[in-house]
Amino acid sequence: MAKIVECVPNFSEGRRREVVEAIIQPFRETAGVKLLDYSLDQDHNRSVVTVVGEPEPLKEAVFQAIALAARLIDLNQHQGEHPRMGAADVVPFIPVRDVTMADCVSMSRELGERVGRELNIPVYLYEEAAAMPHRQNLADIRKGQFEGFSQKIQQPGWQPDFGPGQVHPTAGVTAIGARMPLIAYNINLGKADKTVADQIAKRIRYAGGGLRYVKAVGVYLKEREMAQVSINMTNYVQTALYQVFEMVKVEARRYGVPVVGSEIVGLVPAAALLDAAAYYLQLEGFSPQQVLENRLE
Amino acid sequence: MAKIVECVPNFSEGRRREVVEAIIQPFRETAGVKLLDYSLDQDHNRSVVTVVGEPEPLKEAVFQAIALAARLIDLNQHQGEHPRMGAADVVPFIPVRDVTMADCVSMSRELGERVGRELNIPVYLYEEAAAMPHRQNLADIRKGQFEGFSQKIQQPGWQPDFGPGQVHPTAGVTAIGARMPLIAYNINLGKADKTVADQIAKRIRYAGGGLRYVKAVGVYLKEREMAQVSINMTNYVQTALYQVFEMVKVEARRYGVPVVGSEIVGLVPAAALLDAAAYYLQLEGFSPQQVLENRLE
Repeated sequence: MAKIVECVPNFSEGRRREVVEAIIQPFRETAGVKLLDYSLDQDHNRSVVTVVGEPEPLKEAVFQAIALAARLIDLNQHQGEHPRMGAADVVPFIPVRDVTMADCVSMSRELGERVGRELNIPVYLYEEAAAMPHRQNLADIRKGQFEGFSQKIQQPGWQPDFGPGQVHPTAGVTAIGARMPLIAYNINLGKADKTVADQIAKRIRYAGGGLRYVKAVGVYLKEREMAQVSINMTNYVQTALYQVFEMVKVEARRYGVPVVGSEIVGLVPAAALLDAAAYYLQLEGFSPQQVLENRLE
Repeated sequence: MAKIVECVPNFSEGRRREVVEAIIQPFRETAGVKLLDYSLDQDHNRSVVTVVGEPEPLKEAVFQAIALAARLIDLNQHQGEHPRMGAADVVPFIPVRDVTMADCVSMSRELGERVGRELNIPVYLYEEAAAMPHRQNLADIRKGQFEGFSQKIQQPGWQPDFGPGQVHPTAGVTAIGARMPLIAYNINLGKADKTVADQIAKRIRYAGGGLRYVKAVGVYLKEREMAQVSINMTNYVQTALYQVFEMVKVEARRYGVPVVGSEIVGLVPAAALLDAAAYYLQLEGFSPQQVLENRLE
């Protein structure tokens, strides 16, 4: 595989396992596509799938999965804690290897056009693929959810990018877009309560005047008796892992609290960690082409 | 490519480019094998080739290259600064992906047996493939060089592992073995002369009571007006990059000398840098399976 794109579609079904298995079948059967992970959340009644592949077969497999979701999920019957607006709720394409963000934006547009035309589902392009600034943020698009969308779709500025001007009666609407890989990164504090983790989170996150591509909240882990700054990094190229780690240490000093460790939840692109190694080892003139594995392809 | 082995054969020809091109032709032509790099050294009259591939095709291509070297190089005509004993002087196999050191030892034995039998070249297994402790070190095997080997091969303990009991009249003898990847790693000192770099090198290297898999010397780089600890790491899994970097910082403090940076020369396995990132970010429970790229194969 030369060019590789990742896709993390979210489907509004987290309880009927046989339905989720049917929806992800195209990811198992399509050549040039590999299913990496999927998980069902009962409370959210939602499943999150991670699949990678070459652009064309991946786009085809994702279309088939959206079509299956539209056939098997009825949003009128759906209840769950997580906000949602469609059977295939949100479909982000993520550049992994030898592809640009622009390539992923093109994939979003092509897939969106086909979903609108063949499945009669209104499609909103979001994040890097968004056609209008007020549609970049997924939460803004999803506001009102499935139940409120029949009205919302009539409002100025909410005409979909592709598909009909009316909500699909059972499959709702779908957001399709392109974004950087997310990194879920937690930093663990010794001898601290949740308040301290909250305060640190507030200082380091974008919303609080901190680092641009950082979202953060404080949490307390009862079973480990530990406070934690729980972080979502939305662009590890622009805002680096080591910056976040060092910023948390800087803030923790104010409270006399030690940083005892950190953890990456789920997957991380190699480049995010190589960048941290290069920073701490003070590597001069380092190039990813020096990494043996990068020379194998 | 699933299983990947690296091979870094050294040939005793660094001046006649057309000869080197002919020798490495099998690395260009064999499917499942990829030529990563090669360089000719005029003074040493020697070339170093880096090639990777799946075990079976790689072994075949390396055999063909050794056969070509035996046909095209006459050690009786060879002069150069670097010690040498064969047309194909030394052939190490190095595990890269999904192969063990034991696999590379097996490859050395199979290739050695064939080189001895089909090419009539005496073969000595070395490093991890060595059959006897006094033949682990390549320098010990090579002592006496081509000119002295006709006598050496008669001495007790110097019967070759494969091939005839007599030196090949023009191609000499060849060392074949298995080893870990080497990392060439330099650490740069500010405001220091060569003496300080020498002292630090002595303290951190194995030979001076330092880290087990570290060789180091002090050098002075005239053009950059900078002293440097120049390091060869012979097993980055057992002795980590960050250990070496931190040890040099510890020693530099004694002289009030700052460590201003470091550099990796040539290729480095991703794992060596991921390990450094995990150390400095104090990552808990980190697994290489969390690296996205590692999930693609």
